[in-house]
Amino acid sequence: MSGTSSPFAEILADENLSVSAIDHCLDRIELRDRTIQAWAHLDPDLAREQAAARDAEPRRSALHGIPVGLKDIIDTEDQPTGYGSELWAGWRPDRDAEVVRRLRRDGAVVLGKTTTTEFATYRPTATRNPHRLGHTPGGSSSGSAAAVADGQVPLALGTQTAGSVLRPGSFCGVFTLKPTYGRWPFDGVLPVALTFDTVGGFARHPAWLGALDEALATDGVHAPHSVVLPALQDMRVGVLRPPWADRATPAAAALLETFSASMRSSVSEVRDIEVPAALGDLDDAHTLIMAAEASAALSERIHRPHPARVSDQLHAFLHGGRSAPASEIQHAREVLRLARAFVDRALGEVDLLLTLAAPGEAPAGLASTGDPVFNKLASVSGKPAVGLPAGRGVHGLPLGIQLIGPAHADQALVRVATCLTDRIGLAARPELLEETEGE
Amino acid sequence: MSGTSSPFAEILADENLSVSAIDHCLDRIELRDRTIQAWAHLDPDLAREQAAARDAEPRRSALHGIPVGLKDIIDTEDQPTGYGSELWAGWRPDRDAEVVRRLRRDGAVVLGKTTTTEFATYRPTATRNPHRLGHTPGGSSSGSAAAVADGQVPLALGTQTAGSVLRPGSFCGVFTLKPTYGRWPFDGVLPVALTFDTVGGFARHPAWLGALDEALATDGVHAPHSVVLPALQDMRVGVLRPPWADRATPAAAALLETFSASMRSSVSEVRDIEVPAALGDLDDAHTLIMAAEASAALSERIHRPHPARVSDQLHAFLHGGRSAPASEIQHAREVLRLARAFVDRALGEVDLLLTLAAPGEAPAGLASTGDPVFNKLASVSGKPAVGLPAGRGVHGLPLGIQLIGPAHADQALVRVATCLTDRIGLAARPELLEETEGE
Repeated sequence: MSGTSSPFAEILADENLSVSAIDHCLDRIELRDRTIQAWAHLDPDLAREQAAARDAEPRRSALHGIPVGLKDIIDTEDQPTGYGSELWAGWRPDRDAEVVRRLRRDGAVVLGKTTTTEFATYRPTATRNPHRLGHTPGGSSSGSAAAVADGQVPLALGTQTAGSVLRPGSFCGVFTLKPTYGRWPFDGVLPVALTFDTVGGFARHPAWLGALDEALATDGVHAPHSVVLPALQDMRVGVLRPPWADRATPAAAALLETFSASMRSSVSEVRDIEVPAALGDLDDAHTLIMAAEASAALSERIHRPHPARVSDQLHAFLHGGRSAPASEIQHAREVLRLARAFVDRALGEVDLLLTLAAPGEAPAGLASTGDPVFNKLASVSGKPAVGLPAGRGVHGLPLGIQLIGPAHADQALVRVATCLTDRIGLAARPELLEETEGE
Repeated sequence: MSGTSSPFAEILADENLSVSAIDHCLDRIELRDRTIQAWAHLDPDLAREQAAARDAEPRRSALHGIPVGLKDIIDTEDQPTGYGSELWAGWRPDRDAEVVRRLRRDGAVVLGKTTTTEFATYRPTATRNPHRLGHTPGGSSSGSAAAVADGQVPLALGTQTAGSVLRPGSFCGVFTLKPTYGRWPFDGVLPVALTFDTVGGFARHPAWLGALDEALATDGVHAPHSVVLPALQDMRVGVLRPPWADRATPAAAALLETFSASMRSSVSEVRDIEVPAALGDLDDAHTLIMAAEASAALSERIHRPHPARVSDQLHAFLHGGRSAPASEIQHAREVLRLARAFVDRALGEVDLLLTLAAPGEAPAGLASTGDPVFNKLASVSGKPAVGLPAGRGVHGLPLGIQLIGPAHADQALVRVATCLTDRIGLAARPELLEETEGE
């Protein structure tokens, strides 16, 4: 990790690296958590104890001793997992999710659990965007995005079913990886819609996402662990022109043009790729299938004998999924297949696809976590996507770009992101925020 | 309908066509039903009354007055729908399934409900194969296949989630159409796994399947009602070489070679298409996703307050789906995506894919409905497939071939099947069975 702008650079030279890192995180959290509210659970003594144990051992991997935040739908055997619902507050699963087991195997230290919207769906948390407190950090992985952006933890895991990794990463100005579908195991994570559900990562530098992938990836069905991409100068890049382009803010649309124009000098070709008009329904089609699958996946967990109830919003969402006519489900699944076939075809013509990671800056207010429409092609196709902070909008909040690559080119994508950040300077390295201005 | 070998040819000239056809069907059923047991419900008076009403009207379509059998998971407002389960015996839905509404709108007459395995899954019916009574007719659309094969009804609807249209059609020696996914509406039909669930048709001549499609098709998402294929002499045909080829009987494997060799003189090219080895898992992957979706889709219907219980076999199947680790579901969904991408790619190289419709003749015994492995590519890809009886095996029972085409080329596929049957004679027109030999 050369040249990171975060204070973790110094810490990495420390022989008590892990304890120092945990202490640094806890100090920052102490200072900021009442404002940002990114954590659902913290156990400082437990984290320090595990960090000390790691410091006493030989390093096992690049993640050895590194603190990690986990979205509170990822099971941990030594910390509660509350699913963002009062129904499950304080619940203690009896074992670690498989991604947690792999992180611990590689020496990472679980710092705590980060906030999530209710059952990783819509009802927001109290978490605030560190860049502007009156704005949403995005969701559903709200706490992971905000904590990493605020320098409270160097790395965090979230999950994406619609746009819950890429969008909050974009709103909070950090790097994200939504890996190839199935590459990071989902066992022990709350399933919402297993057709799409994917664990993803948040970091302040893309190279950390590569380290996460090293720890978490399982070999693909058909593919080796790493599919390679051509060298940057030989790369063909396709700029997606989707039917939902008009949902981007003018500043975000302008950023995409600037970013793609700037890439021309670094790659062999940048061309436009029209997303077929028939995919204008993709957003709705994805939402319907997500609702239909969620109504089945969550049914046992929301009917727990408990005085609390799920929100009216979630209830209505699940009811919509459960009661949809079969022909609407058929239509939606047909649209998803067209979307996958389109992405396969596009990635036959170019090496990488470029699009926005969110429609614009984080919207004002905490009532909604924003619009995931730009994330749905990656969620539906299952292709890996990296999110890069790449500028600021008219309100001074971060804007993000998304690169989508072929299945299992996750490591190659992370290298492209690193190169665009360190060498070409197209991606914006997150500054360490001091006191955030309120509003 | 020129030149059909069935006695319906004469009946079609009759001005009391519908009543005559119904009477003919009922006579045949009277003679044979105690042996074949293809019907779950019949109401002769109701059918005659509706037929008489149709005979008194101007013809509305090619299906006007034609008797149709409906698999007993397709809701009918005037006949019970029992889902092949004692739990639902005698249940009366309050409206017709959408396919039934369209059939009646076009003047077809519902003759009755045909037997289905339990909730269209595995536990067999008592239905026998009309070609050899000791052999299975296949399933889950057992009654539809057997009734059509036995000349008890000219047309029937079934459903396919794994191989429940093509396989029983092959075992019973009739023509089948498993349409493009989503093309025939599934509303009002028992959902088992809506990722795959498709209503399909059984007939004694492929042209009837075209008439069914005329009545039932909805426009595709991206495609016009009918995607055309090149004329037969310009057609490129790919013979699938799948990893599961060794599950075919020697006679079936030989039939595929004979059939594809004979096609060479009628089309522009016949070439082999290797199915990737990574799809060796397709059968298991499909079964797992089917089980996972069925455990959600059937959960309310199997927990009905009722003294009867579902079979241990179904219980175990659903439990397997419900308790599968997320990573197995992820792996299976990844295999399904590879399969869809493979079929898309293959149909970019050729116009039609050719494979067996079943691994061989109907197996002896009624305990199992046979192996659907050869049907899974069509079920998973959602592409239309036509099944053609094309020969006999060493036991004298039918063998079937399957043609898979691009999405919404359903009408074109039916025309190819008609041409192969009437002009080229490659498909075997079902004989009218007299008394079936028992065993």
